[in-house]
Amino acid sequence: MPRKNNIVIIGGTACGPKAAARARRLDSNAKITIIEQRDNLSSATCGLPYFVGGIIKNKSELVSRGVEFFRNGLKMTVFTGTRATAINPKAHRVEIVDIKTNKKQTLDYDKLVIATGATPTVPNWEGKDLKGIFTLSDIPDAVGIRDYMAGLKNKKSVIVGAGLIGLEAAENFVAMGLKVTVLEMLGWPLPTLLDEEIAAQLEKHMKSKGVKLMFGQRVTGFKGDKAGKVNKVMVGDTAIDAGMVLLSLGVRPNVTLAKEAGLKIGTTGCIAVNEYLQTSDPDIYAGGDCAEMVNIITGKKTLVPMGSTANKHGRVIGTNITGGKDTFPGVVGTGVVKVFDLNAGRTGLNEAQAIEAGYDTVTSLVPSEEHATYYPGAKDILVKLVAEKSSGRLLGGQVIGPGEAVKRIDVLATALTMGANVDNLANLDLAYAPPYNSAMDPLHHAANVIRNKQAGYARAISPQELKRKLDKNEKFVLLDVRFPMEWKEQRIEAPQTKLLPLPELDERMSELDKDDEIVIYCKTSIRAYQAQRTLDDAGYKNVCFVDGSLDAWPYETASNKQESTK
Amino acid sequence: MPRKNNIVIIGGTACGPKAAARARRLDSNAKITIIEQRDNLSSATCGLPYFVGGIIKNKSELVSRGVEFFRNGLKMTVFTGTRATAINPKAHRVEIVDIKTNKKQTLDYDKLVIATGATPTVPNWEGKDLKGIFTLSDIPDAVGIRDYMAGLKNKKSVIVGAGLIGLEAAENFVAMGLKVTVLEMLGWPLPTLLDEEIAAQLEKHMKSKGVKLMFGQRVTGFKGDKAGKVNKVMVGDTAIDAGMVLLSLGVRPNVTLAKEAGLKIGTTGCIAVNEYLQTSDPDIYAGGDCAEMVNIITGKKTLVPMGSTANKHGRVIGTNITGGKDTFPGVVGTGVVKVFDLNAGRTGLNEAQAIEAGYDTVTSLVPSEEHATYYPGAKDILVKLVAEKSSGRLLGGQVIGPGEAVKRIDVLATALTMGANVDNLANLDLAYAPPYNSAMDPLHHAANVIRNKQAGYARAISPQELKRKLDKNEKFVLLDVRFPMEWKEQRIEAPQTKLLPLPELDERMSELDKDDEIVIYCKTSIRAYQAQRTLDDAGYKNVCFVDGSLDAWPYETASNKQESTK
Repeated sequence: MPRKNNIVIIGGTACGPKAAARARRLDSNAKITIIEQRDNLSSATCGLPYFVGGIIKNKSELVSRGVEFFRNGLKMTVFTGTRATAINPKAHRVEIVDIKTNKKQTLDYDKLVIATGATPTVPNWEGKDLKGIFTLSDIPDAVGIRDYMAGLKNKKSVIVGAGLIGLEAAENFVAMGLKVTVLEMLGWPLPTLLDEEIAAQLEKHMKSKGVKLMFGQRVTGFKGDKAGKVNKVMVGDTAIDAGMVLLSLGVRPNVTLAKEAGLKIGTTGCIAVNEYLQTSDPDIYAGGDCAEMVNIITGKKTLVPMGSTANKHGRVIGTNITGGKDTFPGVVGTGVVKVFDLNAGRTGLNEAQAIEAGYDTVTSLVPSEEHATYYPGAKDILVKLVAEKSSGRLLGGQVIGPGEAVKRIDVLATALTMGANVDNLANLDLAYAPPYNSAMDPLHHAANVIRNKQAGYARAISPQELKRKLDKNEKFVLLDVRFPMEWKEQRIEAPQTKLLPLPELDERMSELDKDDEIVIYCKTSIRAYQAQRTLDDAGYKNVCFVDGSLDAWPYETASNKQESTK
Repeated sequence: MPRKNNIVIIGGTACGPKAAARARRLDSNAKITIIEQRDNLSSATCGLPYFVGGIIKNKSELVSRGVEFFRNGLKMTVFTGTRATAINPKAHRVEIVDIKTNKKQTLDYDKLVIATGATPTVPNWEGKDLKGIFTLSDIPDAVGIRDYMAGLKNKKSVIVGAGLIGLEAAENFVAMGLKVTVLEMLGWPLPTLLDEEIAAQLEKHMKSKGVKLMFGQRVTGFKGDKAGKVNKVMVGDTAIDAGMVLLSLGVRPNVTLAKEAGLKIGTTGCIAVNEYLQTSDPDIYAGGDCAEMVNIITGKKTLVPMGSTANKHGRVIGTNITGGKDTFPGVVGTGVVKVFDLNAGRTGLNEAQAIEAGYDTVTSLVPSEEHATYYPGAKDILVKLVAEKSSGRLLGGQVIGPGEAVKRIDVLATALTMGANVDNLANLDLAYAPPYNSAMDPLHHAANVIRNKQAGYARAISPQELKRKLDKNEKFVLLDVRFPMEWKEQRIEAPQTKLLPLPELDERMSELDKDDEIVIYCKTSIRAYQAQRTLDDAGYKNVCFVDGSLDAWPYETASNKQESTK
């Protein structure tokens, strides 16, 4: 019998156990050892905010597969409560220590897997070690937050960072009866995922749920009471009252072990790996949050820590450490989040990122209902697409709304991965039946708007650009081409506004000056686009419409019935 | 001013109005005329079953855009209640007749669009004109059915044909208090969409809702009472009691007008068109259900009448009749349907179609939950994938279940369109957050099972193949590798069965003979696959597992508590 392949895996959350299970299936005889600091394997850390909010009742639900399955079902050695302290690549040896007993030992390996994950970022702010200041990346964190909440007198909580975890936490903190203020350094929620047009919808919704959002806020420290409990978050000289604080500022990859072993660290700060997820030492593989990956769209290295990617990494590594050859192609940067009643997500590059990456971009912003309007219960979604102007190549998409947004994100992620352009997207044979969709999917419309812009037929500005023009009190005509009844119901109130219903446009066209700058809106942009085309053909030179029109307008509107916000 | 482009469009349901609206946006000055037999444009015929079932209350909800919008908003001439009776391609002239007044007139055209749709198939069966025998393709049909239902004494209804409309109707007939029997000539529900493994789930679910399903039934005629009302459906000599009958046998394209004008008809019986949707006469275009299209996967002509395709056709035609150049790439054959509490769909080729098209196929059958199990409310779905064995190229997929099936169909439709293989599918960066998905999407698992089969690691038979082996009382070992507790709860009861939990497999392996044929099952196939791999490596030669195991088993199971069906 040949010598058994001796595999050691450091890290037991997602990539590690997956690599172990895959390796076992391909090699029944391999010796496989997993080293994990925590007490369990395969903790579902993505569920932590929902455990905090009581949606997941019991922490045992967060462990999908216990140690027993790996030990008895898959015949592995599992060290829990154990930390790897050093790797000797030359000797093919790992030093480990039992965290409780401090007992040390060394393990030899033929193939080593580093799946050490990432740790929440905690800046060196004054007072950061006060009681009541939490991060949320592990079951004990979540238990700690729940316990602290239970004894909390000052129900005001502050969440620092409006990223994915911060927003999930906001919803769950509200569910637990806390007042929530979110402080974000950048200009809007999910600033690294979403553009302004989509983020504005999220901001509006969170406010409607009682969450206070403050942007451009650079936290400088914390103050506490005599018991050492946090009671203030400092933003320069401004103190924000806080009974509890959650820091959700993203994560840092855990690369110390790899770095000390002399393995190459990439430009993103993650462990550098090739397409086989092999590090600079051919017998050492790295995967999950600690490993570098490629953005399929830009071809550049990127840092996108996701449990979904970690699992895929695990399978690739499991194949390669047992003599196979599999590759990981990279990610497109898909991220989704439920925030109260909204589903929101991004895949690919957002507009800011696409511009930064050097693309000449064209975008669309299209409001729709999630399925046929005549089938009961259709909810809204808003789609933003980003494409390369010259080629029509799809670069990214964002979707938000109470309706089915994630299906569209998944279609876009698939299209992006396969290098689709807007022509492909516009003609996708997507599933159609009234309970699920309209004959034309919102993505079809969004792709077609981009094609109309590429062809020079359609010209638009975003709701945000219109808002800035109104705020600056610029001189232009804001042409509302809806019916008077709709106008009474809801409208953008501004001195620039003129109501001229589309059916009357031909006969009343002389009311508009050919030299005027004309910005047209309706409910969804369909009629506004039609009006723009009519005016174009009549020789008007400076006409555009508002992308998404009223359905994408997140600001105040007026009504004859009463002041309202949509 | 140049002469106005004179466009005539025959047909006002989906393709026609879309072509008209697109043409108007690209050419404000074109003369556009729509001819429609019905009283309205843009009828949402896909909503008809739900109008019958009372989910859509008012028939006015089924008209998304009235004639007024096209006349006043888009400045077109619209003839409703009007039929086109002849086309003279040489003279560029169409004859039309007002259906009520019988008034005839001729219209000249520069460009003509034929969007005449399709008509339900009604074989020339004896008694087919009896009262109470319906088809369902138009608002008057649906109103007729509702009215007839209201006065029905014999509440037994028979639906002939278990296609999409037939199944939607079954749900809605039950909702209206009817007893429903579905007669289908082929072997299972949705026989042209689904393979046996997926259809069996649908059949089981419909039975649980009280629908009687009869397969292999060739209807020969109908019998009626003295009032001329249907009261029996004849299948040869067998009479089936029926107070009402719905014929849902698919549709025939309406091509008479085109044929009589000398336009080329394709092999599918639809009007032949090129990629610009141009007929054999360059000034005549055809789109929607009456026009031929290409299956992107096989490259062959196909007949897939769908409102979604008709709308896409309309845009392409609208571009081309106003001087542009747009093409329609074809379809992948996506079809979805809600049947009671199940969502079911197919995209691409099913296994039978793939084999018929000459592909060497490999399939997977994977049960999963729609999202993270620890997030409340996760419902089941079952995925079947079909791929080309040699290349791994994706050929098609089917998904069914109470959970989110349609999202996965849309991802597959996108992947198929872009020519993805199972490696691409397995690594798609799909949206992951606990309310929406697990870290690994069910499609990832399904793609990986195919890769495991391609690589020779995994070997499986379908639940249906196992059932046939058991029914034939073949000699083999049906190895259940679950825990005794699970076995007590639910199991496949058969003399071939042996319980041997996976953790005990190594030590108890000698209980199995190396020459035995061993078929392994567990709950989802994960442990069964592991056991197969272990036995492979131990030198067992004839081992496989049951694809999808108990979670994909639609037949009876036994329990120590009581007889149960899963």
